[in-house]
Amino acid sequence: MSDLHALIQKSAEKTESILDELLDKEAGLSAPVFEAARYSSLMGGKRLRPFLVKQSCSLFDVEEKTSLRVGAALEMIHTYSLIHDDLPAMDDSDLRRGKPSCHKAFDEVTAILAGDGLLTYAFEVLSDQETHQDPAIRCELVRELAVAAGMHGMVGGQMMDIAAEEKSLTYQDIKVLQDKKTGALFRFALLSGAIIAGKDDQIKSALGQYAEAFGLIFQITDDLLDVEGNADQMGKPVGQDPDKITFVTLLGVEGAKKELQALEKKALEAICLFENKSEYLRLLLQYVISRRN
Amino acid sequence: MSDLHALIQKSAEKTESILDELLDKEAGLSAPVFEAARYSSLMGGKRLRPFLVKQSCSLFDVEEKTSLRVGAALEMIHTYSLIHDDLPAMDDSDLRRGKPSCHKAFDEVTAILAGDGLLTYAFEVLSDQETHQDPAIRCELVRELAVAAGMHGMVGGQMMDIAAEEKSLTYQDIKVLQDKKTGALFRFALLSGAIIAGKDDQIKSALGQYAEAFGLIFQITDDLLDVEGNADQMGKPVGQDPDKITFVTLLGVEGAKKELQALEKKALEAICLFENKSEYLRLLLQYVISRRN
Repeated sequence: MSDLHALIQKSAEKTESILDELLDKEAGLSAPVFEAARYSSLMGGKRLRPFLVKQSCSLFDVEEKTSLRVGAALEMIHTYSLIHDDLPAMDDSDLRRGKPSCHKAFDEVTAILAGDGLLTYAFEVLSDQETHQDPAIRCELVRELAVAAGMHGMVGGQMMDIAAEEKSLTYQDIKVLQDKKTGALFRFALLSGAIIAGKDDQIKSALGQYAEAFGLIFQITDDLLDVEGNADQMGKPVGQDPDKITFVTLLGVEGAKKELQALEKKALEAICLFENKSEYLRLLLQYVISRRN
Repeated sequence: MSDLHALIQKSAEKTESILDELLDKEAGLSAPVFEAARYSSLMGGKRLRPFLVKQSCSLFDVEEKTSLRVGAALEMIHTYSLIHDDLPAMDDSDLRRGKPSCHKAFDEVTAILAGDGLLTYAFEVLSDQETHQDPAIRCELVRELAVAAGMHGMVGGQMMDIAAEEKSLTYQDIKVLQDKKTGALFRFALLSGAIIAGKDDQIKSALGQYAEAFGLIFQITDDLLDVEGNADQMGKPVGQDPDKITFVTLLGVEGAKKELQALEKKALEAICLFENKSEYLRLLLQYVISRRN
């Protein structure tokens, strides 16, 4: 497990460094949007999504440069979604990773534009030939990421989350909502290696099953931390909305923990065909289940 | 000239119809974001950018389906930028094309997400094999549109426009600002045919010169209409900010009109190599110069 910690740490440093390289600094009147994009992108963190890209890519011996650029593009999408989520009209959050959120550090206009800019730039990076020599693969990456991040994916999940307030949701409703809101980007990350290596549907389906279970595990632990965690460790306020329906309000703390074990089993079964190559994907499940932030 | 009007009208109808086809309706909790995206995308209008794509494509006999899908993707980017521009934190506009702007017809959250969704969907449409059989061309379209719409293009231009308030700008400053803010998408539109047909740099450079002049003509006439036009014809408030520095405040009304003639000459020279094929691009210059909205 300490191996995994070190690996996540090293991967996060590489992601930080490629983001630093990809995100321009600019002088002149447009400077604030570049600064804000860098501010929110270079806040550190575990960089879980790029790590998943890296793990998916190492199943199929994909070149490191490709996996780093795909991970960076995905992290830009994740970062833009956090910037827009934090806006006063959305979650109105002043803090992100223990620092002022983008619209607090800059202003609302700059935060909206920095989010738009990062979302756009992700597709520029993916479609650039530096990412992969084969344009068919670059195109598939663009399309899959757009589907995952768009109205049928993450953006739709955000909409559902907001529209769901004060509605009574079932376990199935929350599952669909979370599958779109956070699951879709995890799924893209975990499938990315198979897309790049041109693998068949059987392989993609196995990774998709792992991704589905992984996404639910991530969300259930997030809900548990919101009940059991504290703001210092999380770097953001916790327990803000006691009326909100979550996996934990639906299943109870013990029920949620039981569900985590069942999902871990499912995820492990899905990736057994990769044998030793999937060691870190196996360890990662326990890592997420036992995380404190 | 009446030919051109009819052609623009017909092209706008086709754009409306492909947007209608591409933009899904959806039931359930995510429905509002789909509705808002359709509301803002299907408001009618001249659809000038898709028309430019069509004209660029007809110089090189590109298939109609390709030019329609590229035009639709570009129009989605244009529409998202209007939705985000109109937000209270940005221009705070209640009206767009004579109707309530997106955040007025829906709410702020839905408008932010609909903008994000349209921006993302544009890249999904471009990267889809329905757009063109060659993935190398689809990839170049994605990259060029991302560059045009991103922080070095449209988003950067928006940032400049906001940062420029209360600053004293020169003609050159305004030219750079407008070249990014509105010029970059026109340039993509006018180059799209050459990208799809794999044309060389000489051709692209000619279209780029036309595009630069066209963008300035468009912006100068916009500034003139803001002084001379009326809100009914424009479908949006005019003369809102008398302190704002524009081409007209810098050059005066007569100076601006003289500049239009010089730019028209430049644009005509740039496209003379296309001979008869560029008839509508020639007529379009007078159309934009004499427009009333």
